[in-house]
Amino acid sequence: MYRSHNCGALNSADINKEVTLAGWVQKSRDKGFMIWVDLRDRYGITQLIFDEQRTDKAVFDKAKSLGREFVIQVKGTVIERESKNPNMATGDIEILVSELNILNEALLPPFTIEDETDGGEDIRMKYRYLDIRRNPVKNSLLFRHKVAMEVRKYLSDLDFCEVETPYLIKSTPEGARDFVVPSRMNEGQFYALPQSPQTFKQLLMVGGMDKYFQIVKCFRDEDLRADRQPEFTQIDCEMAFVEQEDILNVFEGLTRHLLKELKGVDVAQFPRMTYDYAMKTYGNDKPDIRFEMKFGELNAVAQHKDFGVFNSAELVVGIAAPGCASYTRKEIDALIDWVKRPQVGASGMVYVKCEEDGTFKSSVDKFYDQSDLKKWAEATNAKAGDLILVLSGNAHKTRTQLSALRMEVATRLGLRKPDEFAPLWVVDFPLLEWDEESGRYHAMHHPFTSPKPEDMSLIETEPGKVRANAYDMVLNGNEIGGGSIRIHDKALQSRMFSLLGFTPEQAEAQFGFLMNAFQFGAPPHGGLAFGLDRLVAILGGQETIRDFIAFPKNNSGRDVMIDAPSAIDEAQLQELHIKLNISE
Amino acid sequence: MYRSHNCGALNSADINKEVTLAGWVQKSRDKGFMIWVDLRDRYGITQLIFDEQRTDKAVFDKAKSLGREFVIQVKGTVIERESKNPNMATGDIEILVSELNILNEALLPPFTIEDETDGGEDIRMKYRYLDIRRNPVKNSLLFRHKVAMEVRKYLSDLDFCEVETPYLIKSTPEGARDFVVPSRMNEGQFYALPQSPQTFKQLLMVGGMDKYFQIVKCFRDEDLRADRQPEFTQIDCEMAFVEQEDILNVFEGLTRHLLKELKGVDVAQFPRMTYDYAMKTYGNDKPDIRFEMKFGELNAVAQHKDFGVFNSAELVVGIAAPGCASYTRKEIDALIDWVKRPQVGASGMVYVKCEEDGTFKSSVDKFYDQSDLKKWAEATNAKAGDLILVLSGNAHKTRTQLSALRMEVATRLGLRKPDEFAPLWVVDFPLLEWDEESGRYHAMHHPFTSPKPEDMSLIETEPGKVRANAYDMVLNGNEIGGGSIRIHDKALQSRMFSLLGFTPEQAEAQFGFLMNAFQFGAPPHGGLAFGLDRLVAILGGQETIRDFIAFPKNNSGRDVMIDAPSAIDEAQLQELHIKLNISE
Repeated sequence: MYRSHNCGALNSADINKEVTLAGWVQKSRDKGFMIWVDLRDRYGITQLIFDEQRTDKAVFDKAKSLGREFVIQVKGTVIERESKNPNMATGDIEILVSELNILNEALLPPFTIEDETDGGEDIRMKYRYLDIRRNPVKNSLLFRHKVAMEVRKYLSDLDFCEVETPYLIKSTPEGARDFVVPSRMNEGQFYALPQSPQTFKQLLMVGGMDKYFQIVKCFRDEDLRADRQPEFTQIDCEMAFVEQEDILNVFEGLTRHLLKELKGVDVAQFPRMTYDYAMKTYGNDKPDIRFEMKFGELNAVAQHKDFGVFNSAELVVGIAAPGCASYTRKEIDALIDWVKRPQVGASGMVYVKCEEDGTFKSSVDKFYDQSDLKKWAEATNAKAGDLILVLSGNAHKTRTQLSALRMEVATRLGLRKPDEFAPLWVVDFPLLEWDEESGRYHAMHHPFTSPKPEDMSLIETEPGKVRANAYDMVLNGNEIGGGSIRIHDKALQSRMFSLLGFTPEQAEAQFGFLMNAFQFGAPPHGGLAFGLDRLVAILGGQETIRDFIAFPKNNSGRDVMIDAPSAIDEAQLQELHIKLNISE
Repeated sequence: MYRSHNCGALNSADINKEVTLAGWVQKSRDKGFMIWVDLRDRYGITQLIFDEQRTDKAVFDKAKSLGREFVIQVKGTVIERESKNPNMATGDIEILVSELNILNEALLPPFTIEDETDGGEDIRMKYRYLDIRRNPVKNSLLFRHKVAMEVRKYLSDLDFCEVETPYLIKSTPEGARDFVVPSRMNEGQFYALPQSPQTFKQLLMVGGMDKYFQIVKCFRDEDLRADRQPEFTQIDCEMAFVEQEDILNVFEGLTRHLLKELKGVDVAQFPRMTYDYAMKTYGNDKPDIRFEMKFGELNAVAQHKDFGVFNSAELVVGIAAPGCASYTRKEIDALIDWVKRPQVGASGMVYVKCEEDGTFKSSVDKFYDQSDLKKWAEATNAKAGDLILVLSGNAHKTRTQLSALRMEVATRLGLRKPDEFAPLWVVDFPLLEWDEESGRYHAMHHPFTSPKPEDMSLIETEPGKVRANAYDMVLNGNEIGGGSIRIHDKALQSRMFSLLGFTPEQAEAQFGFLMNAFQFGAPPHGGLAFGLDRLVAILGGQETIRDFIAFPKNNSGRDVMIDAPSAIDEAQLQELHIKLNISE
């Protein structure tokens, strides 16, 4: 036994106890005749005291040699602290040390092991094991565990069964790029790592498992945008004999449970909006509804005046930034510069100040009079004191730009509060989206999503208008989960593959097993998957997922701590029946 | 809502209720004027009745068309059954159906969906989704989920934190063969899939996580012996500031909890035996101690007589098969044939019948008299009525052969009872084992295992005699878990790598990150890993793991259901900077 208590356990009830503690030296203060050491472990910090008077000389001298992050074990007596620290669980006591063992020495860490560290991202990743000692990372990992446990308990209590699906599966060109694994025993053949357990969970429904879930790693070999990881974790779920409503209810229940248990937040019924409404109202299928600034379309009231920019635009649309009528010219220019950045790409921005006295002042005063601008204010729901920001151009692009601006303004106004949670459902997604590049339709969700029965008549004539029984759960501007009711009929599934440009042979080669399974009595089924990394980060009040992943990869897909990927032996390649094909 | 109840829910308390059920047609009995259908889902079977008198004609006719495994939905009234079935939860009632919807038709399944099926292994694997509908498989998967949940709850309650470690890591030639994943973004480089999260969990200890666990997939590209899978699941655990005793206590507690919760079995303190004792007493480091038949070494009492075979043998050793003195010549010959099979490889077997009257009758009566044989009986702990079976030869080989014979006899005698559980710890494993082929020492557990401090003095002179702080948990003749106290000191770890034949450069290239981490304050730590597949199978009373894995692979590492692995596109290879290297 290296310790009788951990470093967060002792308090004034323990005074006079003989205890043994072990941990890391957080810091030490040497006053010459007295040395205090903060001893840290996962559970807290306990103050140790070595005192020229009361401590054995050899122990006292050894204490003088302690450096930051040394691993030590001490025996001693719990005593009352003279100057108590009410902010610490152990702040009323300290340990008068009688025995000190240095279990391991430590080099000076390359960055400070403090909540606010001086270490940059790169060095923290290289020494991730030191980074994990810091509270913000450590607590994120503990929090992640708690979320996962709550998910498992909640779903298990509802009779969901966690089933492990295989990681070595089959590569399918549809969707994102697969990571593949050469097979030694099957020459010239490859496994793929799953992008999701989609087909397996559907087969489990065909197999009668009824309610499935799994917290599972998934893999996508994509160029990594910021805050994406090549391996990521899903809470993957599927249910049989359900309609969309059943699924929304179950997973709304799960999310409400998590918010309540982990954040103490009560959320009433989640609002639902259609995809079309979300796109029109927020320019976005994952709107952040912690704040207003809904889109007001201004075509009817801003076109057919003398302002050519608007007249030639497909869409003129604005938002009312609350309380921003007082913005200075400089502040407004900053916003204009922001929307003109290539990442956003607007060509300009029109603004209207809604003065407190009910008048309006705009950047286009020479084209519009007060009554025109009043109509803009009505359309954007602007109140006195608000600043209307207007963009125009191609409808889709303009909505995307205004959506970005809306988020930016909200950030600047502090409206994106990490401790406020506004979940919602977005429903009625289109089944297909047109891809200009390949000149064909792609599945918006995936090829197993069922069209809405009432839209089936459009499927040959106007496939782009067919809506799907597909839904996303959105939290604070992030898609945290999405799913659909699946096709469970072989004929419809074949038709879908053909719509997506598969030949019957391709469909058979890649998904024959699934369509075959549908012939043996597939029940109606559907499900969804949550992105656990993102969910945990948002619940934890953070914008980025990296601190919620123990050992993340960088934007080149590298683990800089272990230095992977790396070269492998020629013999290994040979056994796997492959050769390198390196560009000169 | 497809259903108001599941097919296992209704009983006599529900009589007269209007209900909606959905599920699969298990079977239907058509008596002409009356049709009974067994409707099945995951939760049970409910009997439906269609009756010429009481059922609408259209519904009645539709019921006649139902085939096995059709997916249907029915509405009807719960009524009391005329001939009740006390063996079924729903056996008191049936549903008088008023409405019948066929949700999906089904082809005739290629094997019967019954507890005892007519389907062979191959066809069951190809149609695994149908196999999963069968109770033995379905219940195994549900049981696996229960075990995993209990493990998670137990360890979480002890402050263990489940941390997900990465799947895309670095290939290391030490140990078994890695599965590798070519990196598209890092030309010519490869990730490896983890054989275990060993180094990561140690880094988590360096990072202060203190108590870690993870239920995690691991991968080994080995030629598949029976009942091995290329991907398998571990309960992986690690603790900081612990000695071996702490770890044994925690995981003995976990296992006791599982036996109690899942099997209702109370197990007292687990016996412990050393590796040396186990090898001498059972010929095996994973003894099945549900029964006796301990080895009795007979060199002292059987050599130096006139029996040349024994005189020239390094070891003469026997076991007493309980109650087998009555074996016929034919039964004994069958055992002799069994030990002579090439899989066992003994050259012969000597036997001694311990007659009820206290006399002995042996196959070597011309060399040994009654007083000699009495000594054999004492050494093997044979009682009147037992049959002593004796093998001889090279010590190691003979022990292995006798161990196999011991298990075979136990099987024939029905002593390997699946509902009896006899766990134990085997401790004090050797640190190293000599490998004839490579002419060097290999780590018996893995290169991170710490030698016993008291044996450190032997490390340069007699490394083969150094014992490790390594332990296995054994249950019913299977190693279900194993682990060790780890090295946490850079110098000792370097020395270990050098003992194992690594050059300093190789050690640095492969494990530099770990040794580097040890310099920044590594705590003493250790852990273990359970094989979940095997653990669940044994708890479930089964010998093979396959039915406890939803989608297992066959002995060539293939998933015959989805037909993986498979060829991939030339374009995919190109992107990954590899070419095929196929033998002509």
